[in-house]
Amino acid sequence: MSTTTPKVRVGIVGFGTVGRATAEILASHAPDIAERCGATLEVSAVCRRTGIPDDQRPGGARVYTDWRELVASPDVDLVVETMGGTGEARLVVSAALEARKPVVTANKNLLAAHGEELLQLAARQNLPLGFEAAVAGGIPVIRAIAEGTAGDRLRAVYGILNGTANYILTRMDADGVEFAPALAEAQRLGYAEADPTFDVDGFDARDKLAILARLAFGVRVDNTAIHTTGIRGLSAIDMAYARRLNSTIRLIGAAESTEGGLSISVRPWLVNRRSMLAKVDGVYNAVFLEGERVGTQMFYGRGAGGEPTGIAVVSDLMEIARDFAAGHLSAKTAAGFRQPRALRICAEPPPVPWYLRLIIVDKPGMLARIAGILAEHEINIDYVVQEPHQNKQRLPFVITAEPVTEPRMLQAAAAIDASGATLEPSLLLRVAS
Amino acid sequence: MSTTTPKVRVGIVGFGTVGRATAEILASHAPDIAERCGATLEVSAVCRRTGIPDDQRPGGARVYTDWRELVASPDVDLVVETMGGTGEARLVVSAALEARKPVVTANKNLLAAHGEELLQLAARQNLPLGFEAAVAGGIPVIRAIAEGTAGDRLRAVYGILNGTANYILTRMDADGVEFAPALAEAQRLGYAEADPTFDVDGFDARDKLAILARLAFGVRVDNTAIHTTGIRGLSAIDMAYARRLNSTIRLIGAAESTEGGLSISVRPWLVNRRSMLAKVDGVYNAVFLEGERVGTQMFYGRGAGGEPTGIAVVSDLMEIARDFAAGHLSAKTAAGFRQPRALRICAEPPPVPWYLRLIIVDKPGMLARIAGILAEHEINIDYVVQEPHQNKQRLPFVITAEPVTEPRMLQAAAAIDASGATLEPSLLLRVAS
Repeated sequence: MSTTTPKVRVGIVGFGTVGRATAEILASHAPDIAERCGATLEVSAVCRRTGIPDDQRPGGARVYTDWRELVASPDVDLVVETMGGTGEARLVVSAALEARKPVVTANKNLLAAHGEELLQLAARQNLPLGFEAAVAGGIPVIRAIAEGTAGDRLRAVYGILNGTANYILTRMDADGVEFAPALAEAQRLGYAEADPTFDVDGFDARDKLAILARLAFGVRVDNTAIHTTGIRGLSAIDMAYARRLNSTIRLIGAAESTEGGLSISVRPWLVNRRSMLAKVDGVYNAVFLEGERVGTQMFYGRGAGGEPTGIAVVSDLMEIARDFAAGHLSAKTAAGFRQPRALRICAEPPPVPWYLRLIIVDKPGMLARIAGILAEHEINIDYVVQEPHQNKQRLPFVITAEPVTEPRMLQAAAAIDASGATLEPSLLLRVAS
Repeated sequence: MSTTTPKVRVGIVGFGTVGRATAEILASHAPDIAERCGATLEVSAVCRRTGIPDDQRPGGARVYTDWRELVASPDVDLVVETMGGTGEARLVVSAALEARKPVVTANKNLLAAHGEELLQLAARQNLPLGFEAAVAGGIPVIRAIAEGTAGDRLRAVYGILNGTANYILTRMDADGVEFAPALAEAQRLGYAEADPTFDVDGFDARDKLAILARLAFGVRVDNTAIHTTGIRGLSAIDMAYARRLNSTIRLIGAAESTEGGLSISVRPWLVNRRSMLAKVDGVYNAVFLEGERVGTQMFYGRGAGGEPTGIAVVSDLMEIARDFAAGHLSAKTAAGFRQPRALRICAEPPPVPWYLRLIIVDKPGMLARIAGILAEHEINIDYVVQEPHQNKQRLPFVITAEPVTEPRMLQAAAAIDASGATLEPSLLLRVAS
């Protein structure tokens, strides 16, 4: 390495799994990194409120317990935010940009809550704010949308955005077990948190989808406007029915640009076993893009974990370091955050086929009542499955419906539940076409 | 759009499918592109030796028949090379860089033959030379390797790199037809050239693999050192056997970093029908990366075609335009081209399982002779399949072998062919593990 290689001094705020992985990658791959970006990246400071034991401190780095001191330090050129949360983290990122220091963040929640404000600040300061690590750490999908397909008009972005939920679905499919034991196994293996709500109820996938949709369509997406259903309502019966239909079940976040506006939701889908979606097993994620010109693209990789996410942080750091080496920093565009158009949620999304599973008491007139409600909503039944030899007091009953819009299908399911014909809330799966 | 948006004037040399698609995308998506990269991209000149009819000329562009005039024109800030070939194209790219103009090329052959020289020239001039479009146009894999995984150490890069061959294999599998009619159909649909050698004999996949391996491992790869076998030797029998083994056949280019050096080859593989490789149908391509930290990543999309390739050219143009807007151009690193290490081809690659198909005359002692040759090479037979009721004069006969290195398996197959036991050259498929 030439002695004139410029040095970029990195300060890391938040020293958990991702922060530590980032420091470790920068140290162990230093020569490769310097060769590739023309600058050395050195961790000069780390901050954790509770301090950092000496044996965990990256060589040469100063330890701070107050992030304000780290951000203000003349020894820090660039700030990595890996502390998580949306309160303090927002202050860290703003303060760094105000202090004219570029920022890399791995914080999906921060971006979902305050991305617009922070990316606009970055633009005013003409500084990069990298967030490749914030969505699907092990997949460079932010770069792919922002740069790879920038000349195309995207029609849809969808995929498997939560590794925990996908792990649980994979186990339910492979072992024929119910949701609860599959969740317990995921928790035992560290793939699910003690409070799994965020992952299994679809909120994590929803927040990622909101970011992807912003980038893909340039619209302001309010997370709470996204219809979100998780996987808690699924049972072993549903996987068994899925198998009969040569399919499996995946939790999908999908945003499609339609004439009437954006159609956007998170919910479980029934996907054919021959499809690529069905091949995405365990903690892996996959993001599909559909462009007018580029056709279908798919990106697959690990969704989370310290090391994949650390690699994504380092990829942003290297891009910024290259600009440092060239003596010139500039903001990167992030359409959808910088100057978003207002979002119009599609009131009448395109019709799609559905799987509806009911648990009913098997007594005369039940099927007639359910069929009547579907008919009232102008929903055509495609296929009815009822396993023989089941408990007549709790009879699972599956109907697949011909294509109909999501709002109409939701209304029909609600009406069936309200009619007293069912013992449990009905379960809806969108059937992938 | 503000009136102060900087304008970047693009000259396109070679106005075939990709050149025209590039011009068309720049024109029809102009507002989106300007918003995303902070500069307008305008085609100010096009060059084709035979001239361009007025109705095909991009609005406002001057038409040249001599590329030297286009490159020298003060109205051209940036040169796009989409003429193909390695002779004249090399001169165009060099001349543009010498004239201090950044270049974007879609030319895989040029990069394979002269990439090192041209990227070193770009580095000396401190100018970008973009080539996202040169490998798998519809997949932003160059960016993914160069930037997305730059902080990782890659162990392997492999995939389905030729859409023509994959289309033929998909037809052979779906319709049970022989190679020749599947090729004829591909030719009729425009997916295969009149002379299909480059695609079906694996040379196109080999050239792409050489570029990917350079980027992934930073080594100088001589294309002719890559063991390359295409799909011409495959017959309907092989697809039928593959189906019996719950598998299909794909042409795979694979480069793996091993202790003994790089293991690199292009050849057909037997892949399990449940694998992601088997899901890549028709003219689609897929590239897999395996990194120490990031795990497995997969990128899927259309491999060729004017529009996907045009989008890739435009993605490079936008990246450069952003630098123009910022008032600063710089070379991008392309490890493996800039300062490549010498390649060491692995003499003793890791053992893998094999499928060996022989056509023999069914007479006494044949199986003993073949089994004897395999035993001499210390190859253990895993499984033997022989369909009943076949023509005894031309009996297809399949052996799967336990893991053994490629050189030893090639030697054994050659010895069997030389022994007179077979009526046709034997066919080898690597079995994906």
